[in-house]
Amino acid sequence: MDRKYIVKIDCDDEKGLVYKISQTLFKDGLNIVANREFVDIQTKKFFFRAEIKGDIDTEGLANELKKKLPQNSNILISEKKKKDIIVMCTKESHALGDILIKHYSDELNANILAVVSNYDILQPLVEKFDIPYYCVSHKDLSREEHEKKILEVLSKFDIDFIVLAKYMRILTPKFVKSYENRIINIHHSFLPAFIGANPYKQAYERGVKIIGATAHIVTDNLDEGPIIAQDIIRVDHTYGWRDMQFAGKNVEKTVLSNALNLALEDKIFINGNKTIIF
Amino acid sequence: MDRKYIVKIDCDDEKGLVYKISQTLFKDGLNIVANREFVDIQTKKFFFRAEIKGDIDTEGLANELKKKLPQNSNILISEKKKKDIIVMCTKESHALGDILIKHYSDELNANILAVVSNYDILQPLVEKFDIPYYCVSHKDLSREEHEKKILEVLSKFDIDFIVLAKYMRILTPKFVKSYENRIINIHHSFLPAFIGANPYKQAYERGVKIIGATAHIVTDNLDEGPIIAQDIIRVDHTYGWRDMQFAGKNVEKTVLSNALNLALEDKIFINGNKTIIF
Amino acid sequence: MDRKYIVKIDCDDEKGLVYKISQTLFKDGLNIVANREFVDIQTKKFFFRAEIKGDIDTEGLANELKKKLPQNSNILISEKKKKDIIVMCTKESHALGDILIKHYSDELNANILAVVSNYDILQPLVEKFDIPYYCVSHKDLSREEHEKKILEVLSKFDIDFIVLAKYMRILTPKFVKSYENRIINIHHSFLPAFIGANPYKQAYERGVKIIGATAHIVTDNLDEGPIIAQDIIRVDHTYGWRDMQFAGKNVEKTVLSNALNLALEDKIFINGNKTIIF
Amino acid sequence: MDRKYIVKIDCDDEKGLVYKISQTLFKDGLNIVANREFVDIQTKKFFFRAEIKGDIDTEGLANELKKKLPQNSNILISEKKKKDIIVMCTKESHALGDILIKHYSDELNANILAVVSNYDILQPLVEKFDIPYYCVSHKDLSREEHEKKILEVLSKFDIDFIVLAKYMRILTPKFVKSYENRIINIHHSFLPAFIGANPYKQAYERGVKIIGATAHIVTDNLDEGPIIAQDIIRVDHTYGWRDMQFAGKNVEKTVLSNALNLALEDKIFINGNKTIIF
Repeated sequence: MDRKYIVKIDCDDEKGLVYKISQTLFKDGLNIVANREFVDIQTKKFFFRAEIKGDIDTEGLANELKKKLPQNSNILISEKKKKDIIVMCTKESHALGDILIKHYSDELNANILAVVSNYDILQPLVEKFDIPYYCVSHKDLSREEHEKKILEVLSKFDIDFIVLAKYMRILTPKFVKSYENRIINIHHSFLPAFIGANPYKQAYERGVKIIGATAHIVTDNLDEGPIIAQDIIRVDHTYGWRDMQFAGKNVEKTVLSNALNLALEDKIFINGNKTIIF
Repeated sequence: MDRKYIVKIDCDDEKGLVYKISQTLFKDGLNIVANREFVDIQTKKFFFRAEIKGDIDTEGLANELKKKLPQNSNILISEKKKKDIIVMCTKESHALGDILIKHYSDELNANILAVVSNYDILQPLVEKFDIPYYCVSHKDLSREEHEKKILEVLSKFDIDFIVLAKYMRILTPKFVKSYENRIINIHHSFLPAFIGANPYKQAYERGVKIIGATAHIVTDNLDEGPIIAQDIIRVDHTYGWRDMQFAGKNVEKTVLSNALNLALEDKIFINGNKTIIF
Repeated sequence: MDRKYIVKIDCDDEKGLVYKISQTLFKDGLNIVANREFVDIQTKKFFFRAEIKGDIDTEGLANELKKKLPQNSNILISEKKKKDIIVMCTKESHALGDILIKHYSDELNANILAVVSNYDILQPLVEKFDIPYYCVSHKDLSREEHEKKILEVLSKFDIDFIVLAKYMRILTPKFVKSYENRIINIHHSFLPAFIGANPYKQAYERGVKIIGATAHIVTDNLDEGPIIAQDIIRVDHTYGWRDMQFAGKNVEKTVLSNALNLALEDKIFINGNKTIIF
Repeated sequence: MDRKYIVKIDCDDEKGLVYKISQTLFKDGLNIVANREFVDIQTKKFFFRAEIKGDIDTEGLANELKKKLPQNSNILISEKKKKDIIVMCTKESHALGDILIKHYSDELNANILAVVSNYDILQPLVEKFDIPYYCVSHKDLSREEHEKKILEVLSKFDIDFIVLAKYMRILTPKFVKSYENRIINIHHSFLPAFIGANPYKQAYERGVKIIGATAHIVTDNLDEGPIIAQDIIRVDHTYGWRDMQFAGKNVEKTVLSNALNLALEDKIFINGNKTIIF
């Protein structure tokens, strides 16, 4: 039976790229089930993703493609399978809980290797699901010291993605660099509105009629990373900021879940400060 | 400190109803924090809901109001507090899991007295949260025999609402009558589209671009009860029916959760086959 | 046959307000068809709106109410009827065109007294519908001189609301004061995101997945007035900023139209920098 | 300067199709700016759309592709340019008006050749925009006689698409056959809910909380054609069916407009009773 693979390629644009890629795949007897391609006119970058069926020597295929494509090409060929993730959180349970339930019900295309938090509050919840919980308190530690301890924990695992499920601490560039383009955060506002602390309070004070949530790749600039997914819910004058916060939990967890699914299916490309989602 | 109460009244419409109600509340020194009123022109019914603050003898107040209002008036005065609910389910965990996590995180304005299911599949999940689980198998039983057993279980509890969190069996009129207007179901389609079995397959075959979910009060007519809440998500040609089913889980649980919140806050009136939501 | 009236009241909150209002209406033999009431806990303000049926001496009723209610009460009693509006615009036709078509089809609960613009570009369109068009060029004029000329035009009319249908000039406090709380603007972003010039370009550069539009009451602070209505549409990486601008036109005109309807039906209260929409 | 072309291909799926297509395009020195491909697993059909840049002999390229691709292949190569459309309507002006305004403002990628109606009600509106209006009354005519007269009018024009902007008569299979897969209708409900007459009344009586509109390709089966686009708006108990009808006009015209844009950009494939939208 044929296996399924994902081919992701991005490189400088030039004529004939689709031809060269599809020629290589065809020669190897592979069938393209679906593909999308996009050229960013501004940056002159080419993005390609295909789902293919067949028997693949992934390394060999990557090398073949490398020879034909422009020098700076990023080529990722991976079998469709479960990814390995770490979830980081602080005190709030809604986003984490959603991920735990999905994982328990086999609705998440990922293994949760561990949950890491700066508090022990969510430990009882996580342990119900027999998932290792690492409480790394930041108490009396500098940001660097604290992250060093977390990085030690993480170093034990082979991680595809880190999910910040309401992890309420800022990460240093060093940490971000260690898992570049692999850390996904949920921000509890419709970015770029209400950057910073307590966006629901800001939203309440501005009197908006819609609030939202934004899942993004984490970069060095807080709340400024490439956006993966956003969604909104409607509010009205009867909502105090705590009502907004409460109502916002549903949209936060849904947006994070959608963004995570996109990551787990290798559907996200980073294009400067933006994403391309195929 | 003042307590908060909900006053819900529905009756035949006539002039002066708001006056009579507010006069009674004012005499008792109560303050109306918010109210909504609606007259259905078609049925000539009057619906009123107020949130009030003060010290209330609920029974005395109800009697006072009864004297002044039309004979068939329904008057409900209740302190704002946690309701007691039973969750019923079959095999799927997403809607149940969402309720369990919210309950665990104190985000649900309700106590879950028990979970009742016709399978034992979800027992390990429920017991993680130390909530009683009653597995009442329908195997080799007639519908009536099965329900009799369930009703025996339920009779041990003082129940405000029964939540059908993907309980996949049809309830008899006798069962429905026992908890009239207090059973909330989530249907996995945008009713009245795709009534009946496997709505996602129907949706896929029709080629719709939007799928949805509908929470409704359960009545004798399957999928025909008063609608409380609906929501939708977008799909496209890349979705097979199992993809729709998978994607639909998020909207199912969100819609059920929203409908349940409305019920727990006494915001739902039944008006024939419709709801009025204040 | 009974006429329909709107009663709008806002004042400092105190006990018994609904009672006093409904008592007065009942004495006059009026029937409340629908009402909503809201108390803002923060500002301790009371807001009330009712639709009533009967024969009303509006001035007499307002005086009666004034006697019973707190001193600073704003009381508006008006028959349900068409309002008189002025539309202001610059060069873009989509929002204006939508209003013109609705007006032509008798779908707008308003008479368009005139269209005022700082360009003559839209004159041919407006004159197709036999509506007076005043082109008041700002060329070689200071902002004050220009507005003086516009105010001269407006002074000929008895105006309920001024609709800024993509009028791309900033109004001075003097102008705003002249039609306080009666000027409705559509801003082409999901405020408070992308305040200022070319929000679509800002949105494109930030890589958002959702764009929106915001209708608000115009105040002295640009883009900071009380929000009436907001809505959004989804975009993706294939949208350049001009595509966003193009796609945004539909949401802009829909949001403006919805906000205008709310104003025409006297459903908007101003509460500091927020609106209350009943 | 390079021109832009659209290449649309659908055929039975087999290995190497993308390779063969891209090889042909590459040989001709053409650059693929964007492409999407999809294989329907159920029907084993292959769908491909690319936007390309370069100098093209469209007929020559089509022939070259024909030789390499499976026998039943549909190949459409067309320069990106304005399409020619006919709008058909009956009495309601909102969908027609929206198209007229967009056309006037150069926001529609189409020329409106004429408007055809079975009433003269909308003639004054259409003539404001100097577009030919053909009133073909159905009075005292059989459906076949009436359509014969309309087809006579249409035969004068070279038509890319016919837009039914609330044309309230059923078309015969003969008429549909004449413009197969080129007639776009807006249905005023969220299909397949509320098929048939007065969907808003049906929606009101069912007590739904969401209403919608559906744009679809017209086939012989009324309201059963492939769906292009759908959208929804929220309603509540305060909406009578006429309020729903009124509110629905905005969503009807927006959905029709979006579907028309997809058609004008050659983004729609028909796949049995479904569409594939790239």
